[in-house]
Amino acid sequence: MDQNSAPPASRKPRADGIESRRTILDAAARLATVRGLGGLSIGDLAQHIGMSKSGLYAHFKSKEELELATIDTAAEIFETDVIRKVPPSVRGLARVAALTEAFLQHLVRRIFPGGCFFATVAAQLASHPGRARDRIMHLQAAWAAQFIVALRQAREAGELPRGADVNQLVFEITAMMFRANFAWIVTEDERVLDQARVGVKNVLARATGETGTREKRRRPGKP
Amino acid sequence: MDQNSAPPASRKPRADGIESRRTILDAAARLATVRGLGGLSIGDLAQHIGMSKSGLYAHFKSKEELELATIDTAAEIFETDVIRKVPPSVRGLARVAALTEAFLQHLVRRIFPGGCFFATVAAQLASHPGRARDRIMHLQAAWAAQFIVALRQAREAGELPRGADVNQLVFEITAMMFRANFAWIVTEDERVLDQARVGVKNVLARATGETGTREKRRRPGKP
Repeated sequence: MDQNSAPPASRKPRADGIESRRTILDAAARLATVRGLGGLSIGDLAQHIGMSKSGLYAHFKSKEELELATIDTAAEIFETDVIRKVPPSVRGLARVAALTEAFLQHLVRRIFPGGCFFATVAAQLASHPGRARDRIMHLQAAWAAQFIVALRQAREAGELPRGADVNQLVFEITAMMFRANFAWIVTEDERVLDQARVGVKNVLARATGETGTREKRRRPGKP
Repeated sequence: MDQNSAPPASRKPRADGIESRRTILDAAARLATVRGLGGLSIGDLAQHIGMSKSGLYAHFKSKEELELATIDTAAEIFETDVIRKVPPSVRGLARVAALTEAFLQHLVRRIFPGGCFFATVAAQLASHPGRARDRIMHLQAAWAAQFIVALRQAREAGELPRGADVNQLVFEITAMMFRANFAWIVTEDERVLDQARVGVKNVLARATGETGTREKRRRPGKP
């Protein structure tokens, strides 16, 4: 939201300053999915959006500040374009399916040219410890937490067996989306999105199927 | 093998030339998993292995030639360290499990500092069409083909139902390995490798479970 993308309190920005800051960060977030965060030079970015290099330096004191602000902007875009598409009233397994679909539609809409900002930039940063990577990993964990919450709802509502391993399910579900992201960027073939849809369905079918078979064989109040 | 890594026929290399070429390419393959192929500058690489820049230029006429030769070297390393670890006598579902384990052990051994060369470099190159990306995608497809062959063996041997969707299974299996690769690089937590192992087992259990239930209900020689 706007408060999060506002510059640090030490600088008192004017309204048009906030706007141009947002323009820079939107462009930076898109560019980072193609070139990597490391590939975002203030000079290139200035050229890309037609602003002077000194104009950009006025907004960001350092490359790291630019990188972190870019990540936060991407997080806001992802929140609006994916997470908020699924209202809190959609719960349990329906929520898992809706989040998956919202993610795949985010790829289809090509909000970022290099696919999902967090999958793509995380992959690029994997071997580069630092504040940028920490922040991305934190946001990836927040995305995974969306699934943890939905799967726990499913477990509580009896859609999943009590013993369902939520962390394992999240690993498998996010694996499908991660794989789809990279296949989609390269192939632009919608079949990979279908493979991810089927993949997630299969993960859930196995998890719910376990209830189906085990629960039928054992009575409640088992050994 | 050595023949594949030999310089083009137009140059007549001496034995020590071949050796230093291999030294360069081994270093380049390792470095590329951290910096990306795009981040491999001939200058940096020369400094990294303590060779003169002109010495390196004698081996590679262009950046692209260096990139393509680096990919081929990584492919040889992967072939030796993963694919050949599973003899042809291991077939069907046992082959799928053995290939998965060989891949995970390849990560554990940290043959490349940035994880699996092909997962990592493919992710970095996803938005960069060109000969390097084409070559990597070709090699990724060759790796997927290992699983296609093994799953078809499983289908022929009756380990999987006749209607098993091999392409879908390969998508799901490689998704687990892809996801494990990036989680492993960042966390160095062996639990992510276990999650991938369990994930692949779950994919296969679902596929074989379909045989289990369906085959029992229908007699061989179904409608």
